[in-house]
Amino acid sequence: MAQLEAEDITQAVLDRMTDCQDARFKQVMTALVKHAHAFIREVEISEEEWINAIMFLTATGKMCDDKRQEFILLSDTLGISMLVVALNQIKAAKAFASSGGGAQTPTEATVQGPFYWEGSPELPLGADIGTDMPGEPAYYHGRVTDTEGQPIANCCLDVWSGDGEGVYDMQMGDDAGMRLRARFHTDAQGNYRFWSIKPTYYPVPDDGPVGQMLRRMGRHPNRPGHIHMKVYAPGHQSVTTHLFVADSPFLDSDAVFGVRNSLIVPFTQHAPGKAPDGRVMDAPYHSATYDFRLVPAA
Amino acid sequence: MAQLEAEDITQAVLDRMTDCQDARFKQVMTALVKHAHAFIREVEISEEEWINAIMFLTATGKMCDDKRQEFILLSDTLGISMLVVALNQIKAAKAFASSGGGAQTPTEATVQGPFYWEGSPELPLGADIGTDMPGEPAYYHGRVTDTEGQPIANCCLDVWSGDGEGVYDMQMGDDAGMRLRARFHTDAQGNYRFWSIKPTYYPVPDDGPVGQMLRRMGRHPNRPGHIHMKVYAPGHQSVTTHLFVADSPFLDSDAVFGVRNSLIVPFTQHAPGKAPDGRVMDAPYHSATYDFRLVPAA
Repeated sequence: MAQLEAEDITQAVLDRMTDCQDARFKQVMTALVKHAHAFIREVEISEEEWINAIMFLTATGKMCDDKRQEFILLSDTLGISMLVVALNQIKAAKAFASSGGGAQTPTEATVQGPFYWEGSPELPLGADIGTDMPGEPAYYHGRVTDTEGQPIANCCLDVWSGDGEGVYDMQMGDDAGMRLRARFHTDAQGNYRFWSIKPTYYPVPDDGPVGQMLRRMGRHPNRPGHIHMKVYAPGHQSVTTHLFVADSPFLDSDAVFGVRNSLIVPFTQHAPGKAPDGRVMDAPYHSATYDFRLVPAA
Repeated sequence: MAQLEAEDITQAVLDRMTDCQDARFKQVMTALVKHAHAFIREVEISEEEWINAIMFLTATGKMCDDKRQEFILLSDTLGISMLVVALNQIKAAKAFASSGGGAQTPTEATVQGPFYWEGSPELPLGADIGTDMPGEPAYYHGRVTDTEGQPIANCCLDVWSGDGEGVYDMQMGDDAGMRLRARFHTDAQGNYRFWSIKPTYYPVPDDGPVGQMLRRMGRHPNRPGHIHMKVYAPGHQSVTTHLFVADSPFLDSDAVFGVRNSLIVPFTQHAPGKAPDGRVMDAPYHSATYDFRLVPAA
């Protein structure tokens, strides 16, 4: 009466969606079911492997809290996050080109990663978010313009990174609070500047299920040194990106596949003395400059 | 230096597994990455959809505890669990046929579902596991043989079901303990018998992420009435299966795609009086009979 043979199960699941009112959801779920079933069929998952997968997903969910996002880490390390970012960027670039495009190419996006923390402090230009943190000081400066080269004033740079040992505030224990993150706003000429540390390479959190998976895949967990930025201003499309440290290890094997050539930035080392913003440094420091370019909102 | 274009990301992830020492794990992960990326590419998942998917998986993990397995429910309702069961059964049947096969076909398997609870009480044949539970009494009896028709003595039937309103003990609150589940062992002739209730159709737990998904897919959450059994004996392959109630609604649209024709069993209604095991019933009761057949261990 209701017999489903193995070869009919996929279609049977799809047929249950005749009453689905959400066309996009139906399209996504149809593709999800087809690809998930094709995966199961291709490798003939055993029942033991299946229950292990259930336990892996459960442990991944259990690992998540307000400071740890193991599913983002899973998506990142399987290249899924970067694929989503890259495909959406291609789509946006096509839309931009077909609307006439711009004189300059916009800043490339990369993965957000699991360490974004909403509501970081708003600080004045020139502030130092790396005070009392391990790491060598670095001065970041540059300009935000649109793709015609026009400066964007009052543009927000929402910045975050690990310390000079690759540790994010979220990993520093419950009392650490927000460190090495802040929101800056460009001045009337679109300029920004702030101090932090020079980021170093670090392993993604590998003491959970994703770490076990990476080890079993024979992979290292390291990311090249980088600082994260979300750059957004009214009337423009925001971009979530990194600046990568040009002399960092692991640029050619980022554990989350996020490196873009256009985002690799040289960090210049300076002897102690007067920095470009007038601050007097009694130890060596670095400087990095990068100009962001945002696409006008559609 | 490390630039990955969107079309190269999938291969880049696979290339990272050159040091993987576990050939089966490598095969499974290779297929998983390929199919997951193909899914993302096919429907061009937006960044908002991606983060919604991350939040869905996280909520699904958070919903899991020792009495609730939302990832099994997700797998069940997407037909993945039944596909795994069916493919493994085909594989086992082929192996069995190529080793000479048997005079009779073995009992078909179906999904285990999220309500199995290890270590249920061992009870003597004839015991009633439905006492004080809502539902009409039902007498279950039959025999366990191998595929040559030889009785299997001391074979364990690990039995569980919801009550006559479709509620499992795991859903009855913290104090309920184990109800409507037990382990019985066949007698020297391979016979089993026990009392419980006649199971009714019920909705799978739909107050969590999977319930939301089903509603958005336009699907009902119901399963036809059934009783679960794991049947196992030394020297034989175990089978995890159900007996489905022949007159139940939803036999043709089981929310987890688990119905097999060979597992649909008529429940005969009887007037009050003496039951086949001598028990005197002062209310109407049902009886159901089913003979299990196990394949010899490989």
